[in-house]
Amino acid sequence: MATFVARVFQNWRVSASQAAFNQARNASVLCKRLEFKEYGDPMEVISKVEEEISDDLQPNEVLVKMLAAPLNPADINTVQGKYAVKPDSFPAVLGNEGVGEVLACGSKVKHTGVGDWVIPFLNQFGTCRSHAIAPEDDVVKIRKTVPLVEAATMSVNPCTAFRMLNDFVTLDDNDVVIQNGANSAVGQAVIQMCRVYGYRSVNIVRSRDDLDELKEYLTGLGANVILTEEELRTTQLFKSGELPRPRLGLNCVGGASATEVARQLAPSGTLVTYGAMSRAPLTVPTAQLIFSDLRIRGFWMTHWTRTHSVSRARWEMLDEMQTLCDQGYFKAPRHELVHIDEWREAVRRTMPGGGRVGAKQILIFDRDLKV
Amino acid sequence: MATFVARVFQNWRVSASQAAFNQARNASVLCKRLEFKEYGDPMEVISKVEEEISDDLQPNEVLVKMLAAPLNPADINTVQGKYAVKPDSFPAVLGNEGVGEVLACGSKVKHTGVGDWVIPFLNQFGTCRSHAIAPEDDVVKIRKTVPLVEAATMSVNPCTAFRMLNDFVTLDDNDVVIQNGANSAVGQAVIQMCRVYGYRSVNIVRSRDDLDELKEYLTGLGANVILTEEELRTTQLFKSGELPRPRLGLNCVGGASATEVARQLAPSGTLVTYGAMSRAPLTVPTAQLIFSDLRIRGFWMTHWTRTHSVSRARWEMLDEMQTLCDQGYFKAPRHELVHIDEWREAVRRTMPGGGRVGAKQILIFDRDLKV
Repeated sequence: MATFVARVFQNWRVSASQAAFNQARNASVLCKRLEFKEYGDPMEVISKVEEEISDDLQPNEVLVKMLAAPLNPADINTVQGKYAVKPDSFPAVLGNEGVGEVLACGSKVKHTGVGDWVIPFLNQFGTCRSHAIAPEDDVVKIRKTVPLVEAATMSVNPCTAFRMLNDFVTLDDNDVVIQNGANSAVGQAVIQMCRVYGYRSVNIVRSRDDLDELKEYLTGLGANVILTEEELRTTQLFKSGELPRPRLGLNCVGGASATEVARQLAPSGTLVTYGAMSRAPLTVPTAQLIFSDLRIRGFWMTHWTRTHSVSRARWEMLDEMQTLCDQGYFKAPRHELVHIDEWREAVRRTMPGGGRVGAKQILIFDRDLKV
Repeated sequence: MATFVARVFQNWRVSASQAAFNQARNASVLCKRLEFKEYGDPMEVISKVEEEISDDLQPNEVLVKMLAAPLNPADINTVQGKYAVKPDSFPAVLGNEGVGEVLACGSKVKHTGVGDWVIPFLNQFGTCRSHAIAPEDDVVKIRKTVPLVEAATMSVNPCTAFRMLNDFVTLDDNDVVIQNGANSAVGQAVIQMCRVYGYRSVNIVRSRDDLDELKEYLTGLGANVILTEEELRTTQLFKSGELPRPRLGLNCVGGASATEVARQLAPSGTLVTYGAMSRAPLTVPTAQLIFSDLRIRGFWMTHWTRTHSVSRARWEMLDEMQTLCDQGYFKAPRHELVHIDEWREAVRRTMPGGGRVGAKQILIFDRDLKV
């Protein structure tokens, strides 16, 4: 079965590749990339390197021109040496996510062709570079009907939302999902998927100056209820029976916020933690574990992708995500496109407290890119 | 299927009852019982009541002479009004666990006969009384080959251990289970069951004066490793590879002790909380949830019994427990038999800090009882 699924997944990655396309060009390209040679302050240890690379490809390799690559908080943590995944070696290229176009293929490349769009097969691809040469198995072909920014930001945050909504609790129509950090990239994905799946989302955000604007934005994505942390503490929403208690809670904040989300869950409800914005640990009252059968879990997309790289579940997920995107049911989070030459600004804005919070920084490599 | 299981379970509760036995005696007995009329300090609100009760039985009723009934911490919490289960009405009879002998049966009683031993079918039976009249469906017949004290203490603590070892993680031979509060009644049951099942138990206890004696006692029950809380913090047992990391952790303490137990678990390990002796909530680092897939659950035997009262799982569990007991593989926890007239002493010793910690107080109703 595993073999069958692997084969299906490989085939799904195939384009109608033609031998004519599968040729290296025997030329060279100027590659710009963001590297870090050691752990440290991202503003200090990251540098932009420019280098001519030959496109003399090995038979199984592809030359990919990157189109767009988002900077995620995990990328910053990786550079700081604080992330659970370490680079295999230094210098390491920044970036785990992005979309590129295949420029050339080695003679034995079977599963992709020139002009195809591809995303990394696994984490640690090093997407913050204008060009990459990689074994064809290191990339997954995706449909060009998917809008470019959605393609560039598909494999981490929306997939995190997808898995958390699908893998922990079997939800029914009109079931309620509650989440904190609802304006995060994952939060925005959760809101949109809940709308598609017919679940109702209760979305917790921190109080802020532009709260009304944020509420309007999240409501536009499909949020059913939006509450501040303070409003959650005293809400009668569930006690009054206006909404059934949530059977699934999603937590990317930790600390008191997570405890409060857990407190609202239905008996035998599950709280899934996928982030820790507050840096505070998770604390839950014992009585809720024992008498209400609260279930506490964690989720890490990188680990899931690693353990399910050629599974049917992954193939189905990416297929569904692409359908949602190319049919307009799913939008990328708020973002800014930033040329790689202005990488310092993009990195700064991605760091905690870096300003312009709420706009994901997406590196591009061609100033004339049309999205 | 549910009906089938219910029928099997009922039949399993059947004795070879004969019509001749199934007769009320049309007399009366002097019943001594421990009652509480309101919530409060157990030493103040519990009182012993003596009353003649008629054994004029309804057709479906049995008259049970209680032989032994342990006092559990949950009974104390119930009297204090702090437990998740409240009495249906006041005055309420103390006690959820115990074993009795059937003295007489109503004319339509089918599933039990005079002389049979029975335990309560559900929680809240009110076992701290010399005699009880109850519908036959409120009791479960058990084998008289089971030693009396083991029979009296079977339905709460050993069943809690049984379910926690069976329902959360599929363990293999030589897998490791770690638990704190290892000298609790549940802890002693876990140690013995791990030995029977072929698992290795790592047992955490608080440091104390009689530590050597306690270690000897727990080793005698089958404990593989015994560590104090302090020793656990610096142990190399798992880091060195001497033992594989535990896939299941059991927690009845909470606070720092629970965090420390969780820290030792294998990736994707499960921590099950069933008590909170320290009264401190459970705190876990977010990184362990996300990157190590730590799973946090709770367990409450009362809820399980309520939701599985006639399930095959319960029948199989009670059957296995009786086999373990009557073949000598399972011993009751350390205990003292106390006549109901000395109930004050037994209640005092069951309360937190009540002295003689480590000897479960078991009420008896006949000073000449031979165990």
